[in-house]
Amino acid sequence: MPITTIGFDADDTLWHNETFFRLTHQRFAQLLSDSDPDHLSERLEAAERRNLGHYGFGIKGFMLSMIETAIEVTEGRVEASVIAEILAAGREMLRHPVDLLPHARETVTSLAADHRVVLITKGDLLDQERKLAQSGLGDLFHGVEIVSDKTAAMYQVAFSRHGTGPQNAAMVGNSLKSDVLPALTAGAWGIHVPHDLTWSYERAEPPIDAPRFRAISDLGALPNLIAELKNTP
Amino acid sequence: MPITTIGFDADDTLWHNETFFRLTHQRFAQLLSDSDPDHLSERLEAAERRNLGHYGFGIKGFMLSMIETAIEVTEGRVEASVIAEILAAGREMLRHPVDLLPHARETVTSLAADHRVVLITKGDLLDQERKLAQSGLGDLFHGVEIVSDKTAAMYQVAFSRHGTGPQNAAMVGNSLKSDVLPALTAGAWGIHVPHDLTWSYERAEPPIDAPRFRAISDLGALPNLIAELKNTP
Repeated sequence: MPITTIGFDADDTLWHNETFFRLTHQRFAQLLSDSDPDHLSERLEAAERRNLGHYGFGIKGFMLSMIETAIEVTEGRVEASVIAEILAAGREMLRHPVDLLPHARETVTSLAADHRVVLITKGDLLDQERKLAQSGLGDLFHGVEIVSDKTAAMYQVAFSRHGTGPQNAAMVGNSLKSDVLPALTAGAWGIHVPHDLTWSYERAEPPIDAPRFRAISDLGALPNLIAELKNTP
Repeated sequence: MPITTIGFDADDTLWHNETFFRLTHQRFAQLLSDSDPDHLSERLEAAERRNLGHYGFGIKGFMLSMIETAIEVTEGRVEASVIAEILAAGREMLRHPVDLLPHARETVTSLAADHRVVLITKGDLLDQERKLAQSGLGDLFHGVEIVSDKTAAMYQVAFSRHGTGPQNAAMVGNSLKSDVLPALTAGAWGIHVPHDLTWSYERAEPPIDAPRFRAISDLGALPNLIAELKNTP
């Protein structure tokens, strides 16, 4: 079966992302250290999950959840100066430099020569566009999809719009939950490139029995894997 | 020149939006009435404009700008309970029911029968998807573009992707700045449907000398206007 189209996740697949969230988590904990709240990170994570349906994925929603959690864990006693620091930390995330992961540029460049390569990412629209522009990879992609969530139906649409359908496509990313499992359900190859830091929300069991599931240790192994998969019936 | 494709703006063109921002502005002013800040609405608007480059358009950015302004105008003395009320007001906006404007459904339905109709809107991705789903108009559109900003280049891409290019397209919306002017620059028709309430950011001078500029008082006049434009050389 030919592979005409390769979808790439962006955050923590092509460039660092979770590391900025972790640093901001730490700064958030420091800001609230005076009130020494119990289970701070669990409560922030609970707020993030609770608000996903309203805010979607991305930094702005994370900022709003941090503010909500700061009020909640201090029982309304948090100082406005702390809230101002949270806003500043969030705006800093929105400006952080884009730092490519190893082999990202060479792998996308090499595969773009004889495949349609598509960036498929979720998060805040403007923030993802900024990162793509700053990454210097923008011109390599034949298509870009910034989506509110990654589902099998979304992969069906994206791989049909930018290629010849999911049967002829491979999706590459660090999240089993968002990049691999729904792509497999849509009929594409699902290629996992684990990242040291992955948000708990994105974790899932590896689908080791799925015939179209593969895992590689870094993007440098992708061109050979794709060549090999093309010879797989 | 045939018109194959019609682009519709969403907020305040197909359904009410600015009215919810105005109500939240009022609630915000009430929440801060004790500290009686000078020029509150100007300062909120200044924060919104200042933050557009970071946050983009949409409710989440508006929430963050309200929080920032509340801290700023009280010189850091705002109570956490007020911030919590601002968060609640924003989440309420994200849940507000979708209320179609007059003639929206019949006009899109009628034009969808013999044109490609495309929704082109900016704002938060998830929020715009929610409103489209709740509007009940989703199935009428041949394409949906949720974009970070409305520029001539964006209209060029959108009308080429979903139709036969801007020369054969008309863009319909309440914002001269976002819907009409850049669509005209791209070579499309720009049709203004004014709304009583329009955010100051979206205001611009009507391009009365542009041959492809038209204005109608409500969407009910659109099918006849499109029929007439098709007979215009």
